[in-house]
Amino acid sequence: MERTTYCGLVDETYLGQEICLKGWVQKRRDLGNLIFIDLRDREGIVQLVFSHEFNEEALKIADDLRSEYVIEARGKVVPRGEGANNPNMKTGKIEVEIHEVHLLNKAKTPPFYIEDGINVSDDLRLKYRYLDLRRPEMQQSLILRSKITTSIHKYLEEEQFIDIETPYLTKSTPEGARDYLVPSRVYPGHFYALPQSPQLFKQLLMGAGFDRYYQIARCFRDEDLRGDRQPEFTQVDLETSFLTAAEIQDLTEGLLKRVMKDVLDIDIELPLQRITWNEAMDRFGSDKPDIRFGMELIDMAAAVKDVDFKVFQNVLQNGGQVKAITVPQGADKYSRKEIDAKQEYLKRFGAKGLAWLKVTADGFSGPIAKFFKDSADQVKQAAGAHTGDLILFAADTRKVVADSLGYLRTSIAKEQGMIDEAKFAFLWVVDWPLFEYSEEFHRYIAAHHPFTMPNEEDVQLLDTDPHKAHAQSYDIVLNGYELGGGSIRIHQRSVQEKMFKALGFTKEKAEQQFGFFIDALDYGFPPHGGLAIGLDRFAMLLTHKDNIREVIAFPKNSKASEPLTNAPSTVAQKQLDELHLETTEEE
Amino acid sequence: MERTTYCGLVDETYLGQEICLKGWVQKRRDLGNLIFIDLRDREGIVQLVFSHEFNEEALKIADDLRSEYVIEARGKVVPRGEGANNPNMKTGKIEVEIHEVHLLNKAKTPPFYIEDGINVSDDLRLKYRYLDLRRPEMQQSLILRSKITTSIHKYLEEEQFIDIETPYLTKSTPEGARDYLVPSRVYPGHFYALPQSPQLFKQLLMGAGFDRYYQIARCFRDEDLRGDRQPEFTQVDLETSFLTAAEIQDLTEGLLKRVMKDVLDIDIELPLQRITWNEAMDRFGSDKPDIRFGMELIDMAAAVKDVDFKVFQNVLQNGGQVKAITVPQGADKYSRKEIDAKQEYLKRFGAKGLAWLKVTADGFSGPIAKFFKDSADQVKQAAGAHTGDLILFAADTRKVVADSLGYLRTSIAKEQGMIDEAKFAFLWVVDWPLFEYSEEFHRYIAAHHPFTMPNEEDVQLLDTDPHKAHAQSYDIVLNGYELGGGSIRIHQRSVQEKMFKALGFTKEKAEQQFGFFIDALDYGFPPHGGLAIGLDRFAMLLTHKDNIREVIAFPKNSKASEPLTNAPSTVAQKQLDELHLETTEEE
Repeated sequence: MERTTYCGLVDETYLGQEICLKGWVQKRRDLGNLIFIDLRDREGIVQLVFSHEFNEEALKIADDLRSEYVIEARGKVVPRGEGANNPNMKTGKIEVEIHEVHLLNKAKTPPFYIEDGINVSDDLRLKYRYLDLRRPEMQQSLILRSKITTSIHKYLEEEQFIDIETPYLTKSTPEGARDYLVPSRVYPGHFYALPQSPQLFKQLLMGAGFDRYYQIARCFRDEDLRGDRQPEFTQVDLETSFLTAAEIQDLTEGLLKRVMKDVLDIDIELPLQRITWNEAMDRFGSDKPDIRFGMELIDMAAAVKDVDFKVFQNVLQNGGQVKAITVPQGADKYSRKEIDAKQEYLKRFGAKGLAWLKVTADGFSGPIAKFFKDSADQVKQAAGAHTGDLILFAADTRKVVADSLGYLRTSIAKEQGMIDEAKFAFLWVVDWPLFEYSEEFHRYIAAHHPFTMPNEEDVQLLDTDPHKAHAQSYDIVLNGYELGGGSIRIHQRSVQEKMFKALGFTKEKAEQQFGFFIDALDYGFPPHGGLAIGLDRFAMLLTHKDNIREVIAFPKNSKASEPLTNAPSTVAQKQLDELHLETTEEE
Repeated sequence: MERTTYCGLVDETYLGQEICLKGWVQKRRDLGNLIFIDLRDREGIVQLVFSHEFNEEALKIADDLRSEYVIEARGKVVPRGEGANNPNMKTGKIEVEIHEVHLLNKAKTPPFYIEDGINVSDDLRLKYRYLDLRRPEMQQSLILRSKITTSIHKYLEEEQFIDIETPYLTKSTPEGARDYLVPSRVYPGHFYALPQSPQLFKQLLMGAGFDRYYQIARCFRDEDLRGDRQPEFTQVDLETSFLTAAEIQDLTEGLLKRVMKDVLDIDIELPLQRITWNEAMDRFGSDKPDIRFGMELIDMAAAVKDVDFKVFQNVLQNGGQVKAITVPQGADKYSRKEIDAKQEYLKRFGAKGLAWLKVTADGFSGPIAKFFKDSADQVKQAAGAHTGDLILFAADTRKVVADSLGYLRTSIAKEQGMIDEAKFAFLWVVDWPLFEYSEEFHRYIAAHHPFTMPNEEDVQLLDTDPHKAHAQSYDIVLNGYELGGGSIRIHQRSVQEKMFKALGFTKEKAEQQFGFFIDALDYGFPPHGGLAIGLDRFAMLLTHKDNIREVIAFPKNSKASEPLTNAPSTVAQKQLDELHLETTEEE
C-alpha cells in the first residue's frame, strides 16, 4: 500500500476519496460492532471507523489493536455523523471508513501516555525518548526547529554565504570553559579537543579569503550544567570580511526577520533597537534586557539629594547610585514579608538592603516613609509613581544597583503578569566593555573572547588601562535572553599581541596556545567580524519552552548523562590500552 | 568604503561605472609611472591600473604594495587597451582606473605561491592552510561543496524531510571500526564515544514517528588512514518510515539529479541502473563497478572446457571459475614483463597466476597459446576478441576471479585512457549478502551493519545458514566509488535478536551493547529504512579531485594530525586530573 497523505492532513478536501494512511493507534473506542481508532502520525490525528458494514476482516483486526500499534489502513473519507464534529482538529469534520487494514508492528504498553502535558520525571522521558518524542508538542518543537535551520540555510545562501565545515577534532586551548578531550591512539599522551566554538577556524577562513562563511556547528563545553546548558549545543556561526559592526548587525537582522516570517509568519520591524551596554545597564540593570515591558530603572539621586536618610546620603557621597523601579499598583500586591524575602534574595548580588515606599493618597507608607515627608512630591514625580504604586530603591555601587533592580524588574514583571508572552522583542546591546573582572580568577578576562577588537580610540588603552576599553562587540537579545553575540575581530598581529598581554598571557603562553593563529595574522588578514546565534535557545524561545532540552532530540540530563543509551559508560580495557590510558583510582 | 561587487565579477556590464573593490594583491607590474595590480577575491581576479593621470596619491601607495597585501580601491571601469584583452578571464576585457586606494593589511611573503597547480608538500599546505585555501582551485572546491549542501537542504526540505541533530557525545558500541572516546569528568572511568554514524539515533527517530529524517552529520572513526579516509568525515544521513527499498532509491535518485543540476548543470537520466550484487561481481568483479567503460568480465568456462590446459581444467573440476577480460588492441601495449608485474600484484588477492593470450592474425601468441590451437575460434568468439587484442584470464574461486579481473579491468582502463573523465556514471548495487567473512576476526560479520533487514524469504536462514542470506540493502556507486549505501532496517525485536545471534553475540553482550535499542523495538517501531551518502567523497568526485582532503577546509594529514594547530597535543596535568586519567608509560 502506498500512503496517500499524512493522517493529520486529511480534511474535507478528501471527502469521497479512497485513501491510505499509516501511523500509530492513539486510542481505540469499541462500541461492539463499531470500532473507532484515532490514528496518529507526525502531522496529527485522524479518526478511522471500522464496521462489519465496511469490512468484516478489518473490524476483526481492529478488535485486537492496542495503543501504539503500527498499522496501515485503506478507506473512504466521509463526513462525521451529526454533532460528532471536532472543531479543534484539522481532521475534525471527517472520518475514514476502513476497507482494509494491516498490522505492521505491535507495541508494549508505554510507560507514559503519548500526549501533551504529561507529568513524568525528566529521566523517564529521556530513557524512553523515542516515546516522549512521539508526543505532539515534541514533534512540533523539532519540526519547528528544522524550519528554523531551513530558513537560515536559504537566507544565508541568498546572501552569498558559504557553508564550510570546521574540525571537531582540534587543539585544546583551555581559555574560558573546560574542553572535552579526545585521546589520540597514534600519539601517546596527546589529545584532541572538541571545539567550544569554531572561532579561530572561522577567522582563518576569513584570512583564506572566503569573505562570507557560515556553519550550523556543534559546540562542546565541559561545564557544570544549568537549566539552559548542555554539554553539546548548536550555534549558527557566521563570519564576514570587510564589513562594519553595523553592517553585520543589518545582515543578522535580515536573518532574524526571515526566520520569524518563515517559521511563525510574524513580521518583525527593522531596524531593531540598538542600545549601548552602558544604556542597557542604566535603564534595565541587565546586559540582556527584556523590553517586552517597561518598569525601567530610574536614577533618584537628584530627587533624594536633600532627604535626610543616611543610607542614601552615604552612598551618594561615596560616588554610588540611588535608583528605583516603580511597580504600578504594587502597594497592595506586596506585603512587608514578601518584600523582606526579596531583600534576602538580593544579598547574592551584594545588596545590603532594600528600601521601599508605598504610595498612598497622602504621601508614603513604609518603614522609611518618615524621612520622605518633605520630599514626597519630588520623589513621586521622579519615580513616575501614583497612588497605589510601590517604589523599590537600590542604593549601592553601580553594579550592585544594576544587578538588584535588574533582578527585581524581571521577577516582579513575571509575578505580576506584565509580560506579553506572545511577543518577540529583539534588541541589540552594543559597545561592551572589552574586559570583565572575574571573581573566579581574580583578574580581568575577555568579556567576549580574546579576539575581539577594541573600539578604534580604545586600542591605546590596551597598554595603559585595558579595563577601561570598550569593544566593537554586540549581543542580540530576545525576550531577556542572550540569543547570540559577536564582534569585529582583531586582524593585526600587533593588536592581538597587546590583547594577550593585557589578559596576562606571557609571550610563551600566548605562543604555545595561539601561536599558529598569531603567526597567521602576518599573512594579510582582512578586517573581519561575525556573530554566533544559539540555535537551541532560539528554538526554545520560538516554541515558548523554558529549557533547551525540549528542542533537542536526544539531550543529556542535568548530570550530563544520557539515560537512553547510558552514556557515558565504561569501556573495554583494550580500548584504554590502545589509547595509552589508565583511569585513576576513585573512592 | 562600501564594496560594489567582487573582483572576479567585474565585466563589461560595469563599463563607465565608479566601483569599489576589496581584496588581495595577486601580482604587481611596475612600469614606472604606470602600475598594474591584479586584485584577487574569492570570485576571481581583476586588473587595477594606477597612474598619476588618475590619482597621484594612489600611485604612491601602489608603489609599496606587495603580494597578499589587503587593500580597498575605488575607480572607474574602462575597456582594456588595444590587444590587451584576456579572453580566459571573465574580467579580461576591462580594467579599473584607480582614484583612491587604502592599505588594509600588510603580508609577509607566503611560503608558496597563491596559485593553482603548486608543487608543495601536503604538510606545508596544511600548516599554512589559510594560504593554501586562497588558491583558486581550493576556493572553487569549497564553494562547490557548499553548493552541494545547499542543494541537498532544498531538495530534502521539499520532500518533507525534517533536519534533526543527533548527539556527538554518545555511547561506545565498538562493533566495526574503533571509536574515538571522550572521558567524562563527572563519572570517573566512564567515557562518551563520538559516533561512527547516527545509525541507531536515526532509527530511534523513526520509532519516534518523525517519518522522514535527515542530517548532514559528522562521523568519527579511529582507523588507520588511507587516501580517502579522515578521522572525521561528513555524511548526508537520511531515514524514512513505511517506504520500500525501491522507493528510497527513487527518492535518492531525485536528490542526486537535483544536486547534479544545481551544482554542475548536468542532467542525469533517471531511473539509474540497478543491478544486484551478484551481477556486479559477475560482470565487473567489483561491488562498486565503474561503468564509464566496458571491458566486462566474460565467463569462459564453456569456451575452454575442452582445452587441454591443466590449470583451467582443475579449477573447473573443483567448481571454480574461468573468466577473462579482453583488452582492445592490448597485445602491443603490454609486454610480457608488464603482464608479469600485474601477475605479481594479483597475488594479494590470492591469485596463483595470470594466464593470457595475445590475438594475432593467425591465432594466439603467448606462453599458453599452444594449448589453444584447436579452440582459437571459439575462445576468440567467446571473449569478443579481435586481432591485436589481449585476453587476460583468471581461473580460481569466484572471489579470487572477481578481485583479480575487477582490479585488472579498472587499472588497465586507467592506463589506456579508456575512461571518459568528464562523465558521471551512477549505479545502484542492490541485494547484498547480509554477512561477509572477516579474515581479521575469523568469523562472519555484518556486510553493512547489524540492523540491516534480510530479504523477506531469507529471514529463516538466520537460524540455519545465515551466510547465505541476502539483505534489503543498496549501495549507490559513482565512477567506481561507493558514494553511499543504505538498507531497509530490522524493525522487529525477534528478527533483531536472531541477527545478533547469527553475528555471534551472546545474549549478554547484545544486551550490554544494544539493549536499549532492542528494548525500543518493543514499542511499535514502523518499518523503516534509509541511506547515507559520503559528502566528502561526493564533493571530491564532482571536483575531479583524487583525495577528500582537497574538499575539506581543515583536514588531518595521513597521520591523523593537523599541522596548522598541531592537534593532537599534550594537555595540562590539571585537565587529566579532572578527567581521572593517567597516560601510561611509553618507550
